Amino acid sequence: MGRRAETSLYLALIHHPVLNKRKEVIGSAVTNLDIHDIARMARTYGVAEYFIVTPYEDQHQLVQELLDHWLTGYGATYNPARKEALERVRLAWNFEEILANVAQKEAGTPLIITTSAKEQSNAISYEELQKKLSKKEPILLLFGTAHGLAPEIMQKADYSLPPLHGGTRYNHLSVRSAAAIIVDRLLGS
Amino acid sequence: MGRRAETSLYLALIHHPVLNKRKEVIGSAVTNLDIHDIARMARTYGVAEYFIVTPYEDQHQLVQELLDHWLTGYGATYNPARKEALERVRLAWNFEEILANVAQKEAGTPLIITTSAKEQSNAISYEELQKKLSKKEPILLLFGTAHGLAPEIMQKADYSLPPLHGGTRYNHLSVRSAAAIIVDRLLGS
Repeated sequence: MGRRAETSLYLALIHHPVLNKRKEVIGSAVTNLDIHDIARMARTYGVAEYFIVTPYEDQHQLVQELLDHWLTGYGATYNPARKEALERVRLAWNFEEILANVAQKEAGTPLIITTSAKEQSNAISYEELQKKLSKKEPILLLFGTAHGLAPEIMQKADYSLPPLHGGTRYNHLSVRSAAAIIVDRLLGS
Repeated sequence: MGRRAETSLYLALIHHPVLNKRKEVIGSAVTNLDIHDIARMARTYGVAEYFIVTPYEDQHQLVQELLDHWLTGYGATYNPARKEALERVRLAWNFEEILANVAQKEAGTPLIITTSAKEQSNAISYEELQKKLSKKEPILLLFGTAHGLAPEIMQKADYSLPPLHGGTRYNHLSVRSAAAIIVDRLLGS
């Protein structure tokens, strides 16, 4: 197959399994702006593909309708730039599916990197990951919705990026903001 | 008065005067997630105040209801972290009001910095602005909704930050993503 994008970075936004505020494993609902904002950011930075991962059939239908509107419906002529961003969105059922998908495109398993608002023991620095990307090593970067990725996903990671700190003790960024900042740190000039 | 925040950076999200896709001056509607996402990001980075600027009375009512819910209503107990972020949101009618407000707090006129997806002649680098912030010089950073700040606002700026580039020819970031990336570049560690 082979990748035709500018970078070897793949993003995935996980809606299940994630945690709620009581640290229970749940599935979250897809948010319209998570698709748009992260797709526009991903396209700006040349991200290869952006996966929306949810096991729920009704959520697949919802996302597919949205994608159809912008890719082939009225939205495609009304806003071609939006079409261009959403062309890199892929709808997937679970983590295994996206891993297989990327492995096939890249002819090799990508490095799996998780993000979290909490320190993890398997940290990798932004500099190290930048270097790997500059050598076009395939990277699959995972973001969690709700209160973050569940342990069963965290455990699949090769490494985890350190939490974002802004010089205060407050760090409750939206996943949209966190994804933008992290990808800029990795690929911004 | 005096500032009690961690930094001397002030953000403003302008809803009028901004441009539409035909470059006409318009007023845009306030978007719920622009308030939440940018407030959470601003609080994370210790931004002093975040102004929502709109001349429309119905929009003021709408934003005030939202703020009341999270600051003193059910939202305040349900999600104290959200309350903490939204405490730094200020509702304002126009650019002159926010300028006067910041000047009073800082006992001096702030440097006015605009952001744009297009190159401007009055560019300032991220490094230069970082230096000013590290010396606690007051900075008022303006973001436009819709298709960006109108010329009459651009002309009030001392400087403009260069457009964000992600290594592709595509740069259609949401204002939420752009604000997050820009503030991280200025204040992130």
